[in-house]
Amino acid sequence: MALEGRLDDGVVRVGGDARQRYHDSRGYGYPLDGNEIALAPVEAAHLLYRGDLEAIVDADCGERLGFREFMAREPGRDFGVRFLVYADLRSRGFYLSPAAEPWIPTPPGGGADFAVFPRGKGPGDGEIAYALRIIGERTDIPASELREGVLTVVDEESEITYFEVGRRDPSGTSVPDAALPSNCEADLLADRVVVWDPPLELYEKRFYGQPLEGREYERPTLQCSLVEATYLAERGALSLDPETVRERGREVEGERFDRRLAVYTVLRERGLVPKTGYKFGADFRTYADVTSVDDLGHSELLIQVHPAAYVFEPRDLALDVRLAHGVRKTMVFALVDDRSSDHGESEPDETDGIEWWSLERLTP
Amino acid sequence: MALEGRLDDGVVRVGGDARQRYHDSRGYGYPLDGNEIALAPVEAAHLLYRGDLEAIVDADCGERLGFREFMAREPGRDFGVRFLVYADLRSRGFYLSPAAEPWIPTPPGGGADFAVFPRGKGPGDGEIAYALRIIGERTDIPASELREGVLTVVDEESEITYFEVGRRDPSGTSVPDAALPSNCEADLLADRVVVWDPPLELYEKRFYGQPLEGREYERPTLQCSLVEATYLAERGALSLDPETVRERGREVEGERFDRRLAVYTVLRERGLVPKTGYKFGADFRTYADVTSVDDLGHSELLIQVHPAAYVFEPRDLALDVRLAHGVRKTMVFALVDDRSSDHGESEPDETDGIEWWSLERLTP
Repeated sequence: MALEGRLDDGVVRVGGDARQRYHDSRGYGYPLDGNEIALAPVEAAHLLYRGDLEAIVDADCGERLGFREFMAREPGRDFGVRFLVYADLRSRGFYLSPAAEPWIPTPPGGGADFAVFPRGKGPGDGEIAYALRIIGERTDIPASELREGVLTVVDEESEITYFEVGRRDPSGTSVPDAALPSNCEADLLADRVVVWDPPLELYEKRFYGQPLEGREYERPTLQCSLVEATYLAERGALSLDPETVRERGREVEGERFDRRLAVYTVLRERGLVPKTGYKFGADFRTYADVTSVDDLGHSELLIQVHPAAYVFEPRDLALDVRLAHGVRKTMVFALVDDRSSDHGESEPDETDGIEWWSLERLTP
Repeated sequence: MALEGRLDDGVVRVGGDARQRYHDSRGYGYPLDGNEIALAPVEAAHLLYRGDLEAIVDADCGERLGFREFMAREPGRDFGVRFLVYADLRSRGFYLSPAAEPWIPTPPGGGADFAVFPRGKGPGDGEIAYALRIIGERTDIPASELREGVLTVVDEESEITYFEVGRRDPSGTSVPDAALPSNCEADLLADRVVVWDPPLELYEKRFYGQPLEGREYERPTLQCSLVEATYLAERGALSLDPETVRERGREVEGERFDRRLAVYTVLRERGLVPKTGYKFGADFRTYADVTSVDDLGHSELLIQVHPAAYVFEPRDLALDVRLAHGVRKTMVFALVDDRSSDHGESEPDETDGIEWWSLERLTP
């Protein structure tokens, strides 16, 4: 016999044998006195949808609501998308609860909407598989609101994408820059630098620049990006004044240049080799363990540089993460605190002034 | 014996047996009287670089320039990137000329920088393989400047990407919308529409909406995007006022909504089925020949909708085209003239008020 629920003060109470039927055996709601339970609207909607509840009576007006009427009321912020995600995870064999007391005793932090329990576990077992945040595809996300956990985006046609959000501290073992050559002859062109006859290892071992048309010469002429050239000039490796190159970088790229230089510098200092990520629509791709360009291997990360105050659009996130996945790389966002790029050089503190976040697609 | 050139008034003249050595047999420059030829600076730089010219003498000051000195002068707009592309195509076995008289008698239009001849052909053969436009990765391109031909982008590290730009008129053979159902019960939620128990074929044959949690029911409840719902409501298929749905679309999406609706409408009218392209960072993906959702096949196009006055950033182009290529689709940009979306419906004329451009990666 299907039960009825009673909507009162934002929760749906169900009596009868609801505790045993819905809570204890299937992880819905939280227990009240006796056999009664309280359900979040999204839980109640799911039971209604499945026919496990027959109707919900609105305690205020006495109206009797079926699934359609209950949905049309949209009881709560983002109710439509929350219901879709709730139903999707249920259909994948997970139990989940609102990330709040009293549904679970210790809710995860970070603005989570749901706590998803490991398969086979429920709200009483004290384990959480994912802390889930849910947004529609048109909801922007300030970078400052990124949290470890799962970001769930529901698109306009109600398809759901799950992203695993985590901290990512890039590090590598590439040849250190302790002994760069000094004062190589170089010319600043419009938006790049040509280095004439540098020692072969500048390219071969450290992977700076790009040889001019093939590598048929012993000491190939190298073209460097303005970021590479500023970094090298700051370390005395080029005949150019670093300030001149940096100014040119700012002219052609605007304020992005200092942020990109800050990230480039930290990556190099951490033993990675950053090269342009242009073909992937990113700022850099990185190689963690370069000893020779003849044996480069695969670049592991795509780095997108943003100011700390950046606001992500879910559509761009989808594009970036999808592309990275397609080329077997991990998308990492480098969020640069303005202080760290003010002077064009990083001022290393514990965090380098840069927060690193990875986003990867997840199939729950 | 290597020859010398003389830089005068923007071209480099070379005498001796230059005509036979450089023009007739290798496609450089254009012939002057006798055996003399004239070279564009980029052609002269290439001959200098290869050691075929020994030096270039500046006719104004008498200075004798080697490759480094000549490059450092940057003789002409975007000289650095133009040289890189010239050298790259030469190394791939192509001859190419500046897209101007008197290098070639009939230059291609559309702001091309170089005319590239078919392999084995030269400037005198009257055939052009590609009309090439060259930009640096930081040069924005107004949509109004797109031309059929090849767009060449040189990134900050001097890597070159070639894009084939063409007109693309999407068309398909999907089930026509002549006999849509009428007046299906539907509710407008925050940013989507739920259609209750529509005829099965609305989803199964015409691929509107997305069934709520699987397809276990005979007449599945469908969720439609606001674009889909407006289109359906305009044709009397839903119980909702089309104006109400369209207004909601504008509220949640802003002015993009009318443009997207205009493109959606034209695509449907042309026998394609557009579905959201969110997971690919695009507005729509399209299926050309839908007869049943059980046999959908592959979606062929990714459609990105922009206003006609849009300005592309090369970085975004790279990302979009790369992603489309990775998922075996073609990237198509739909440029919407504001007049066609003013009223939320397309006003079909010869062009639908929409220009369709495809961009694909090209390996010359």
